[in-house]
Amino acid sequence: MLKWAALFGAAISVVIMFLLTWWAAFIAFGIVIFLLGYILYKKPDVNWGSSMQASLYNMALNYSVGLSQVDEHVKNYRPQCLVLTGPPNFHPDLVDFVGTFTKNLSLMLCSNVLIGLWKQKMPESRLTADGHTKWLMKRKIKAFYTDVVAENLRSGVQMLIQTAGLGKMRPNIPVLGYKRNWRMVSSQSLEDYVGILHDAFDFKYGVCLMRMKEGSRAAPSIGWSWLGATQNIPGSKDYSWEARFIAGLWVGSRDGPLIHVNPTTLASEQQASTIFQREQGKKTIDIYWLFDSGGLALLIPYLLGHKKWWGKCKIGVFVSGQINMMDEEKKVIVSLLSKFRLSFHEVHILPDISQKPPPEHIKRFDDLIAPFRLNDGFKDEATVNEIRQGCPWKISDKEVDKNRAKVAVVMWGSLQVRLNEILLDYSQDMALIAITLPISRKGCPRSLYMAWLKTLSQDLQPLIILIRGNQENTLTFYCQ
Amino acid sequence: MLKWAALFGAAISVVIMFLLTWWAAFIAFGIVIFLLGYILYKKPDVNWGSSMQASLYNMALNYSVGLSQVDEHVKNYRPQCLVLTGPPNFHPDLVDFVGTFTKNLSLMLCSNVLIGLWKQKMPESRLTADGHTKWLMKRKIKAFYTDVVAENLRSGVQMLIQTAGLGKMRPNIPVLGYKRNWRMVSSQSLEDYVGILHDAFDFKYGVCLMRMKEGSRAAPSIGWSWLGATQNIPGSKDYSWEARFIAGLWVGSRDGPLIHVNPTTLASEQQASTIFQREQGKKTIDIYWLFDSGGLALLIPYLLGHKKWWGKCKIGVFVSGQINMMDEEKKVIVSLLSKFRLSFHEVHILPDISQKPPPEHIKRFDDLIAPFRLNDGFKDEATVNEIRQGCPWKISDKEVDKNRAKVAVVMWGSLQVRLNEILLDYSQDMALIAITLPISRKGCPRSLYMAWLKTLSQDLQPLIILIRGNQENTLTFYCQ
Repeated sequence: MLKWAALFGAAISVVIMFLLTWWAAFIAFGIVIFLLGYILYKKPDVNWGSSMQASLYNMALNYSVGLSQVDEHVKNYRPQCLVLTGPPNFHPDLVDFVGTFTKNLSLMLCSNVLIGLWKQKMPESRLTADGHTKWLMKRKIKAFYTDVVAENLRSGVQMLIQTAGLGKMRPNIPVLGYKRNWRMVSSQSLEDYVGILHDAFDFKYGVCLMRMKEGSRAAPSIGWSWLGATQNIPGSKDYSWEARFIAGLWVGSRDGPLIHVNPTTLASEQQASTIFQREQGKKTIDIYWLFDSGGLALLIPYLLGHKKWWGKCKIGVFVSGQINMMDEEKKVIVSLLSKFRLSFHEVHILPDISQKPPPEHIKRFDDLIAPFRLNDGFKDEATVNEIRQGCPWKISDKEVDKNRAKVAVVMWGSLQVRLNEILLDYSQDMALIAITLPISRKGCPRSLYMAWLKTLSQDLQPLIILIRGNQENTLTFYCQ
Repeated sequence: MLKWAALFGAAISVVIMFLLTWWAAFIAFGIVIFLLGYILYKKPDVNWGSSMQASLYNMALNYSVGLSQVDEHVKNYRPQCLVLTGPPNFHPDLVDFVGTFTKNLSLMLCSNVLIGLWKQKMPESRLTADGHTKWLMKRKIKAFYTDVVAENLRSGVQMLIQTAGLGKMRPNIPVLGYKRNWRMVSSQSLEDYVGILHDAFDFKYGVCLMRMKEGSRAAPSIGWSWLGATQNIPGSKDYSWEARFIAGLWVGSRDGPLIHVNPTTLASEQQASTIFQREQGKKTIDIYWLFDSGGLALLIPYLLGHKKWWGKCKIGVFVSGQINMMDEEKKVIVSLLSKFRLSFHEVHILPDISQKPPPEHIKRFDDLIAPFRLNDGFKDEATVNEIRQGCPWKISDKEVDKNRAKVAVVMWGSLQVRLNEILLDYSQDMALIAITLPISRKGCPRSLYMAWLKTLSQDLQPLIILIRGNQENTLTFYCQ
């Protein structure tokens, strides 16, 4: 009752204020609104006290609960990313890439899997989680950080895929780094990596995979260089996705606190710079929309092209087509894209996608998979079975032939070779290439799959984003 | 540029409107504000279109991310609950209890563990999750629903404890129902149940356990009675926590869609009524604050006592003390509670808590644990070891004696017997009793622990809430 009387009194005061001298009242209001706007814009680092914090919590909670009432619809689709960064400061480029296109738009959740028993890892996880969140804030990335203790990488990611997020704010795309050192690692590690991709598809998620040009990785941060100096991390020389991930695990397995484990040190360490923090100018983003899986491969580069440093970039779309119908096909694609309200600058038809690549390129692919081949054509059956038992990831002759025979199928080594040639021809100097991620059958040897990925993306200068949706539509004609 | 010009034009229009006829302008503004207020208050079920939904998402996301910048502090502590309801419609009382004290205040997350392989369970989980969320909305409970597929109940709850939630909105108290049928179930099931409590403490979480009077459980909902009619669910007759949980699993294990699996049926089914939906009038809430663990046992009943149907309830606090210092101790407690700004109506000192209970009550406790005893005093060592191997949950004579010897320790059977006597004396007619949850050592047989819980809470009419914090302070003196 009392509070309503107070509100009434306040309203009356405002009315009287205007009645007495309306212009003075306007000036007073103007000053107040200007000051409020200034404070909201500047967001000064002031502790507004616990009642502000409490109302922040209440608003976050109420809006999140209210979101549950929104029905799912293709109009509401947002690429919500679960970024498998490990400790985020080990992967500034992956963090920046996802942070750029999700900023003010959709959920980004950096995640870290700690391998071990959760009772042992828990205190450490508590300690570092806060530091990682602070690090993300300092980098101005609007993201959450979460870690999980699991027996192995894959089961940890499964846990995250199943339970991370709240209500409608749940990730639907895991984002991974490209596993550069796949030829050196154990078969279990390879199995885990490809298994994560399969799990994501099983869970009706899309997948996004990022490959940087070799050597162009972000400068290692303090924590990382300190680690490198100890010289006893397996694979610490190559800054590959897994090496960094493993390094994270390795640091985590020590008992004593290490440099970057201290939250304050972590937040204050020098921030590594990546290409996502630089003006991209009038470079071009090329999208190779070869196999549709719901439009995700169009959506993510489109979103990226509307952000700060990428705003001036041209976006070109490449689709495959027949040489004698190029003009018609181009018209169809242009009209389709305009219905989706995606304003791309150029559309190209690739008529020569199914050409046979020259033998020397095929040979390079064969050389790549040679160490992983079973060569069962030259061995008797007992030996073959024995090897197959021990090394299920070995590639049999039949599999090579089978994959070579199905010309039209995505999962064909020589198609990747051909695509790589096309990419080298058309997009060598682009800022970014987005291309559909090839997928493999479940039984396909992991090393053969990784060889496709490597072949597809090798020797290219630009940043490469391999994207695959899950046949869930992410674009729509309907405006209302 | 254009949008700023438009804003400027709009502002000028408003100014001119006031300059021309100020009273007409005020009336126009008044009508608009009234209509806006009416719509915001009524929240009509209208689809405001995708731009409203989009801004709802953005606000939820931005506030949630902003929350990460709030440092953790005892002033910000909120009891955020992970409610182990199984399918929420099987546990309307548990849902209502937590929903009542968390409403507009803190996070409530209903969770369901589906036992099995996640690839098989996933489609079903997708189907039902939406229905459960709708059911919660229809019941006007502001809660999230999440499910997880795991090998067993305990590992599923571990997954939820580790990863559920987002940023600062993460549960810190699992809420369970009391396991009424602990004497009938397998030792593995008992191990899982008590293990969940231990896991929660290991993870620095509090725990809350609810026991309803036998027979006063909420009327089973349609889905449930339909299940009961099939008559082949183990334990379907007793509406215990686990029976309902198992029923949920059982329904889930069928291939075809069942009545309550259909989301629309689920949301439209008749809502079971519970005591939390009724005016409690001038009844009393009694808090037995016997062993402090951070003040959680005071906080939850206090929050409950400030909600709609419980607003008129008196709250009494019972603490143990010495008979010759009762007045001094009472003064200390009253001043402590007033510093915490908890306005409780009565404080009682219990001087007779360590009295020895009468032998017939002790005997009843001994009878309760008799079926679970190893009786190793009368057997030779080899037999004892053999039984111990097969049934690690059996209670050895030594354990009974040890627990009987430590008079001062919480984990003593006869203390629970004595507490039960006190509860029967003082609080038989109260609306709700909140009491500290006893804890056990890790090695303590599960059946002995469950016997304590049963002994402590048996024969009582009111709803019993067993609460234990984790030595983390939840109350503070400091106002600013």
